[in-house]
Amino acid sequence: MAELRHDPITGRSVIIASERAKRPRQQHDNSDQNRKQTGPCPFCAGNEALTPSEVWALRKDGTRADQPGWSVRAVPNKYPALESSRASIAKKDGIYESAGAIGAHEVIIESPEHLTDMGALDVDQWTDVVRAYRARFATLGSNPLWRYLLLYKNQGERAGATLEHVHSQVIAMAALPQSMTDELSRAKARTESTGRCAYCEMIQSERASERRVMESQNFIALCPFAPRFTYETWVLPRKHTAAFEHNTDEACADLALFLRDFFLRLNRVLDRPPFNYVIQSKPPHVDADGYFHWRMEILPQLNRAAGFEWGSGLWMNSLAAEEAARRLRDAF
Amino acid sequence: MAELRHDPITGRSVIIASERAKRPRQQHDNSDQNRKQTGPCPFCAGNEALTPSEVWALRKDGTRADQPGWSVRAVPNKYPALESSRASIAKKDGIYESAGAIGAHEVIIESPEHLTDMGALDVDQWTDVVRAYRARFATLGSNPLWRYLLLYKNQGERAGATLEHVHSQVIAMAALPQSMTDELSRAKARTESTGRCAYCEMIQSERASERRVMESQNFIALCPFAPRFTYETWVLPRKHTAAFEHNTDEACADLALFLRDFFLRLNRVLDRPPFNYVIQSKPPHVDADGYFHWRMEILPQLNRAAGFEWGSGLWMNSLAAEEAARRLRDAF
Repeated sequence: MAELRHDPITGRSVIIASERAKRPRQQHDNSDQNRKQTGPCPFCAGNEALTPSEVWALRKDGTRADQPGWSVRAVPNKYPALESSRASIAKKDGIYESAGAIGAHEVIIESPEHLTDMGALDVDQWTDVVRAYRARFATLGSNPLWRYLLLYKNQGERAGATLEHVHSQVIAMAALPQSMTDELSRAKARTESTGRCAYCEMIQSERASERRVMESQNFIALCPFAPRFTYETWVLPRKHTAAFEHNTDEACADLALFLRDFFLRLNRVLDRPPFNYVIQSKPPHVDADGYFHWRMEILPQLNRAAGFEWGSGLWMNSLAAEEAARRLRDAF
Repeated sequence: MAELRHDPITGRSVIIASERAKRPRQQHDNSDQNRKQTGPCPFCAGNEALTPSEVWALRKDGTRADQPGWSVRAVPNKYPALESSRASIAKKDGIYESAGAIGAHEVIIESPEHLTDMGALDVDQWTDVVRAYRARFATLGSNPLWRYLLLYKNQGERAGATLEHVHSQVIAMAALPQSMTDELSRAKARTESTGRCAYCEMIQSERASERRVMESQNFIALCPFAPRFTYETWVLPRKHTAAFEHNTDEACADLALFLRDFFLRLNRVLDRPPFNYVIQSKPPHVDADGYFHWRMEILPQLNRAAGFEWGSGLWMNSLAAEEAARRLRDAF
């Protein structure tokens, strides 16, 4: 089974998931060219039998599970990095310790048609997608086993996608990664010292800055002050909201419009770039409603992490956040 | 000038170096195909005028600086991410703080001929390369301004190289990155509790493990227990040595043989993969000789960091360290 390994000196944790080497089209070679889709797409409507059985879907009345009639569909990942079926067994190996990699790993299929770019989704489809995200955060978050949730998307080969049909993934784990533990500590300390949410403070300050990209009734998009990636953009709710599943129906509808507008801008400026996005939401069962604030980080994959970044943990970026924001603002 | 920006919530630090956008062949597009070398190579012997003046070189007697006759040549990076000429000025911007990105950024050109793969270097050339690394660590480390040094290599477009002629880079900075501060703390705590260097303890334990790849009189190569990358391999001195510049002439000669052997194996198993390597050496002016131990991390770039890694800070790897080590051991 998959194994969660920790290095006590570097502090890094790695999931060793050998089963994932069996994924179709994953290549261990030097080029991206060999990753072309072959065979029927398992995410297209009509091919539901090619995926594990769905755990959730938005469907037309009268249609049945694992049949066409859905607009968004969530299924377990066929090649999961985490397994939910067994108890975690701790192992010792020399000076090292590891444990079973326990969790849930789902795929959210974001269109019944074979679309390959989120910029091609209309507002209704975006609304269904946002509601699907909310539903999976709520359901997985209500399971007492899961203490950490992450939603992430890989679009484009350079962003790590192995299947091109639009989809995101959700991971649920039994423990918080160090990066989230550290962020919670910093956010809590800041709130204790200022009396308010650090993200709300940032939003207020950034609204007047050159880094602001867009704003709606409920949301703001900004290029963060210290971006890892060129054109990195964060979307945050303007009103304090700790967890993604706390979004109201009205906020979901507004977010759908907002994201559609954003991805049209991104495509206008960059011509369908490969990108990742992630949703950082308050971890379930952590009492951080007062000081954590969810955000979506949109991470275009144009510059690469290389030796400097892998070695130092610092980043180099040749495009300032202010210039990226200006180009995205001026896209229309 | 370049700016070092810090995000107080995520804890990330980023160097914004807009000048680097002017590098030749750097493309802001989706493909790697457009990065082909055009024009004369600035790193070939005879083209010394295309680089800044050399700061160090191994040369035949009687040859002059910035003329042919060298086997390895170090020059300032023409598009530096860090600048050494001005005082660092702290700035405030809303809730954020930044400072000038002060440091040195050098390029070590590793062959006078237009070689594009370290696997093509013979032992004499590797010896010169290892001595060049030692010389730059020693010289930059003796400057009281620099508290952190990192040597790194990007080979292949997928590993972030913008020029294909074999070269490495050295960065010197006025402050330690968080990752090094954290590693020093963990290593110190472990040494205080066990009475010995944590890396020496690891080497002793790993010599008997399936993760051992190669061993010579002075060095060991092993696939680390929790590897970020498939085929990730660390090279460490078997005898406790904190900083790279402490390597004796004899150790340098042995390391040259050892690395030549390793890269022939890597090419046999993977057919000239893109890779990064970095040398993690005891930072100058830090009293950590007793508990830090230098290592070279060789990081083939076959799997990609994607949404999961960017979002969680954890890694997924579908090839176990034991299997990677077995394939590298069995290469010959």
